[in-house]
Amino acid sequence: MKIDFLTLFPEMFHGVIGNSILKKAEEKGAVQFNVTNFREYSDHKHATVDDYPYGGGAGMVLKPQPIFDAVEAIKQESSAPKVILVCPQGETYSQKKAEELAKEDHLVFICGHYEGYDERIREHLVTDEISIGDFILTGGELASMVIADSVVRLLPDVLGNEDSPVLDSFSTGLLEHPHYTRPSDFRGLKVPDVLISGNHAKIEDWREKESLRRTYERRPDLLETYTLSDKQKKWIDEFKKQ
Amino acid sequence: MKIDFLTLFPEMFHGVIGNSILKKAEEKGAVQFNVTNFREYSDHKHATVDDYPYGGGAGMVLKPQPIFDAVEAIKQESSAPKVILVCPQGETYSQKKAEELAKEDHLVFICGHYEGYDERIREHLVTDEISIGDFILTGGELASMVIADSVVRLLPDVLGNEDSPVLDSFSTGLLEHPHYTRPSDFRGLKVPDVLISGNHAKIEDWREKESLRRTYERRPDLLETYTLSDKQKKWIDEFKKQ
Repeated sequence: MKIDFLTLFPEMFHGVIGNSILKKAEEKGAVQFNVTNFREYSDHKHATVDDYPYGGGAGMVLKPQPIFDAVEAIKQESSAPKVILVCPQGETYSQKKAEELAKEDHLVFICGHYEGYDERIREHLVTDEISIGDFILTGGELASMVIADSVVRLLPDVLGNEDSPVLDSFSTGLLEHPHYTRPSDFRGLKVPDVLISGNHAKIEDWREKESLRRTYERRPDLLETYTLSDKQKKWIDEFKKQ
Repeated sequence: MKIDFLTLFPEMFHGVIGNSILKKAEEKGAVQFNVTNFREYSDHKHATVDDYPYGGGAGMVLKPQPIFDAVEAIKQESSAPKVILVCPQGETYSQKKAEELAKEDHLVFICGHYEGYDERIREHLVTDEISIGDFILTGGELASMVIADSVVRLLPDVLGNEDSPVLDSFSTGLLEHPHYTRPSDFRGLKVPDVLISGNHAKIEDWREKESLRRTYERRPDLLETYTLSDKQKKWIDEFKKQ
């Protein structure tokens, strides 16, 4: 997979794509990152990329020309990349969308920074508008890195056994059960007896129940689309009484 | 405000906090960032920070000791910081939570990386568990940076006029209307006539209607808690017919 980031702040990306699993993924050849400052594509003599909004009002708006030209240059290498605009108006990002994007060959992220986007960019250039949540960021850079991270970890051979995703809450449909490691007594705080019992059937049962309890307490919305077994239904009744 | 990040990948943070508005905010004295590798606090001779899970299973679990000691060292400078764990099991992050966190003096983010956390960290050290959305990341670093970015931009004097947030969708309760800037004709794609009419009342009306239309089409859930004016109710009827 190729991933392009178009941004006015290329330095923001280096620490993230130069470390950790994203770097490993690039070293393994699973992904190739490319960060471009789209200011380089401005045809204005002072390389401006934004201008005042038509109709007045506060703030600046990113001009169509530099972004259109930057995306068109990228398209010369790849005929049909997904061109993604990260913005609060977009579709809410989810694990399902991550799985869809992981099947693509080429993702291009357009990252604005506090300015608005000229609507013609949205309408005629962008294939996907994505929001990572109902909160406001200073720019699209971090949100684009979040999406890239969630997609790259799904690519074949990226996660080794040592990176095994114990936190894969959304793939089972329930939140994860609690985890414990040594010591069994840390400053008086103890590990539940069942986990050191050696009884694997009981351990599995405890984990399933605690996973359900956590989901029931924290994210009951996830249970609306989850099919409960008879055992799980009894546990839910028990939680309701508590 | 002070913001501490506890991580095994401190280099991931440098590009983000060393650039853009976060850097400006630190230069203005609005925030002080501190990134600590919590491996330095391990009392193990090989500085390990994780271990196998009790009860068996794949993946590793972060041990309580290094994280407890790192947080306790930070608490010696600040009596009651918010200690935030970013994880899929947490409360879903929102602009409201960003506004709450912006009132705090000190935030400490614990960033795990693909491992699970020993439950005693959650129960006895953490004050807030936050999820930025229903998707899985390789670690808590990017999610912590997202939260920090959304909080820091709300601190007094951080955003100047030049950074005026035109994309503040969630503060009005509606999604933003489209923006346009020059040229009025870009490769045959034109700006709506009303925006170059000079009629400010009409422009305001168009913007309000398009903001409502976009919300109606893309995020009807936001309208459930929004109080519509009579004019807006008529527009909604019009959208329904279209």
